[in-house]
Amino acid sequence: MTDDPRNGLDPEDWSAFRETAHALLDAALDKMQRAREGRVWTPFPAEMKAAFDQPLPEAGLSGADLSAQLEALLPYGAGNTHPRFFGWVHGSGTPQNLLAEIIASAMNANAGGRDHGAIYVERQVIRWCRELFGFPEGASGLIVSGTSLATVVALKVARDARLGFSIRTAGLSAARLVGYASAEAHACNARAFDILGIGAGALRRIPVNARFEMDTDALRGAIRADLAEGLQPFVIIGTAGTVNTGATDPLTELADIAAQSGLWFHVDGAFGALARLVPGLEARFEAVSRADSLAFDFHKWLHVNYDAGCVLLRDEALHRRAFSDRPDYLKAAERGLAAGNPWPVEYGPELSRGFRALKVWSQIAGFGTKRLGEEIEKNCVQAAFLGAKVSADARFELSAPVALNICCFRYVGAGLEGAALDALNEEIVVRLQELGIAAPSTTRIGGRAVIRVNLTNHRTQLPDLELLLAEIASLGDAAAGETA
Amino acid sequence: MTDDPRNGLDPEDWSAFRETAHALLDAALDKMQRAREGRVWTPFPAEMKAAFDQPLPEAGLSGADLSAQLEALLPYGAGNTHPRFFGWVHGSGTPQNLLAEIIASAMNANAGGRDHGAIYVERQVIRWCRELFGFPEGASGLIVSGTSLATVVALKVARDARLGFSIRTAGLSAARLVGYASAEAHACNARAFDILGIGAGALRRIPVNARFEMDTDALRGAIRADLAEGLQPFVIIGTAGTVNTGATDPLTELADIAAQSGLWFHVDGAFGALARLVPGLEARFEAVSRADSLAFDFHKWLHVNYDAGCVLLRDEALHRRAFSDRPDYLKAAERGLAAGNPWPVEYGPELSRGFRALKVWSQIAGFGTKRLGEEIEKNCVQAAFLGAKVSADARFELSAPVALNICCFRYVGAGLEGAALDALNEEIVVRLQELGIAAPSTTRIGGRAVIRVNLTNHRTQLPDLELLLAEIASLGDAAAGETA
Repeated sequence: MTDDPRNGLDPEDWSAFRETAHALLDAALDKMQRAREGRVWTPFPAEMKAAFDQPLPEAGLSGADLSAQLEALLPYGAGNTHPRFFGWVHGSGTPQNLLAEIIASAMNANAGGRDHGAIYVERQVIRWCRELFGFPEGASGLIVSGTSLATVVALKVARDARLGFSIRTAGLSAARLVGYASAEAHACNARAFDILGIGAGALRRIPVNARFEMDTDALRGAIRADLAEGLQPFVIIGTAGTVNTGATDPLTELADIAAQSGLWFHVDGAFGALARLVPGLEARFEAVSRADSLAFDFHKWLHVNYDAGCVLLRDEALHRRAFSDRPDYLKAAERGLAAGNPWPVEYGPELSRGFRALKVWSQIAGFGTKRLGEEIEKNCVQAAFLGAKVSADARFELSAPVALNICCFRYVGAGLEGAALDALNEEIVVRLQELGIAAPSTTRIGGRAVIRVNLTNHRTQLPDLELLLAEIASLGDAAAGETA
Repeated sequence: MTDDPRNGLDPEDWSAFRETAHALLDAALDKMQRAREGRVWTPFPAEMKAAFDQPLPEAGLSGADLSAQLEALLPYGAGNTHPRFFGWVHGSGTPQNLLAEIIASAMNANAGGRDHGAIYVERQVIRWCRELFGFPEGASGLIVSGTSLATVVALKVARDARLGFSIRTAGLSAARLVGYASAEAHACNARAFDILGIGAGALRRIPVNARFEMDTDALRGAIRADLAEGLQPFVIIGTAGTVNTGATDPLTELADIAAQSGLWFHVDGAFGALARLVPGLEARFEAVSRADSLAFDFHKWLHVNYDAGCVLLRDEALHRRAFSDRPDYLKAAERGLAAGNPWPVEYGPELSRGFRALKVWSQIAGFGTKRLGEEIEKNCVQAAFLGAKVSADARFELSAPVALNICCFRYVGAGLEGAALDALNEEIVVRLQELGIAAPSTTRIGGRAVIRVNLTNHRTQLPDLELLLAEIASLGDAAAGETA
């Protein structure tokens, strides 16, 4: 028996490979350096769709064809790297992240466990997050793909802690858990209830006030009513920055109610919790430090490349008891590669885990919290600027107070109402996207379609917002004329 | 109000940044080109631990300091890029993946949904997987971080389909679900039962035969017994390649039993399912195509960089009903950026999702299935070679038949028995790791500690295995001498 003369899946010609890699790096850098130029979003062309609709290939592409096909993708992202991308809540990434991704790619570390560099970098990031949010020294955490998974992890710990960890084996058959979040809370919370077998219906949606913050009297009433019915309240979910309007629940009061009622206090801080870095906003987010668990994203307002989020747990022992489960082949050792306890696999559902921590570390270490906070503050100032412009212009109608970084409004200059006005505002957004001018998104507030401008974009400048308003007005007039 | 003169978080000096990026790329390429050289695993030095144990920084590092700290990490991966890494089940990655990661990083796409290039690339990969595993045309799939999460997704669909989708809202309170997997099945299956509220205890562990494959008579008996007790059997989990020994359950028979009993048939194919690419092994994995759901990894035997796995579901409608949940701000449109239905968010727990699909696409497109299959086959031949060497040498004892790519054995040359022999074999593995010579791992088979050599490494060659055996024998003799 002889060995294959080929060198595994490594390049046969390293110098040609190096040349290709440097050329693609230059193409990537060109794309990033020109982030401000050109269209915001460009539809994927038919010939590209065809190129990515091929039968399973038995033979590989040549190096030149592969790199050409990779490079050809560059213009067809979602647009979130452009300064006039205002849709949903997308971070815009940083060129600096590419450095971390190059190193992480060459290391190709599995950060599920064992004793190696990636593990220490992740621990550093978790300690930084603990410090950032005022969690105690013994608190544990895990980097995950984002708030959705972080929420599943956090609420599983809360579920198991409430029912006793024997339910990990026994299942939920006799439980009647209920939890509480505002009517504006993110869908990932109900989805976590669904995944965990608690049922999305067990998440009570508490009404909000005019500022879209949870009504704490209604919360107290709901807890009392559920207790009277013999149900088992277990968690209050406070939102730091709702996705529709950027509102933040009265977190201090929620922490007090949770403490008085013996309930778990979870904070959904997907993007908003990081606004704690802004001088003057600390008070609003202060009570995040009282949470039993916190879920938030690095890929939104910290601009770490997709995907990266985090869950922090106040009580490491509960966290570990809810997830730890080390089969024989993953047993830890005192020495050697299998040392380095605890392993991240003990804190979440994943065993194999990429080295996401490096791009997060690089972002925080490379910019520092002051600089990152300034970019967050800039977006808040921009949202307020946009809100003021909208309020001062009779063609627009502000749909919700600007609480943080989101401005929701409608174009009302054409005299339409009801469903016609909804359709007009949705049409304006689609046209802005199709024309490549800007990419806000839409949502519904009070049942009506509104234009939603979210600012988690370090490249946006004030003239971008002025251009946006001018184009909305002009498209609105034109579209209203067409349908009239 | 004036704009910040700085250009967001983009480099102030692009040409310096380009120079840094190219220099780090060269360092990364050097590391990869020298994958065969030097130590397999190197402990993270104390000064590096200190460098990554700093307070949360208010100010950022200089560009030079940041890139120096990133580059300094390169030697401290887990070792899985080295040809003599044999631990757990780690893929070794490919340099080619770096090309995809550079492009993906510059695009920074959120593949949760919307209508852009990343979505089409992922659909291409899912279609390829469908073709690879013989799933029908309408089958759906999702790229996730790995088999653990893929299993949660698959079993959630199975759970909801069995109980009716109203339990998504109602929770599990009256359910008494049970499922079946072999005693050798991976821990992620029981963990998914735990996460989903079914309870890990509801996963019956069916005994295995001498080849570590599920005993189907025992399975039939367990289903009958559970039905007689009024429980609700819902899933049979077949393993294609167990993590301990590489055994594969009799999948055709399991598919038959599932069909006869009206049970969901899930295949845990984490690494083994891809051995379907090896000529001569198709028959063993043929019945994967009959599964209702399949979970497997790209980052193991396909050598895609960490992390990347996949879930395939035969019935797209069930898949979507178990996860779809589109809040107002994520509603799909017919045109513009919010078009492109269905969105991946409808198939799994994550809303924000990185562009993992590109590195998977690049691996399959760049090498083709034939070449990738040859590397898988090479590892199987190597495992058989190692098994034969071990069997022919009185100093070693084979602990399980070599079914695929894993060889478990013990060094027995020192005449020790029982706990002393267990400790000796564990010590040998730790010393191999500490010396940097090789990195196998350990597991327990029949309650005894064994040396476990897993071959999912395209860089391994036969002399690496000969060296391994020689070193084990020599370390075994020495260690036995010390403790005697």
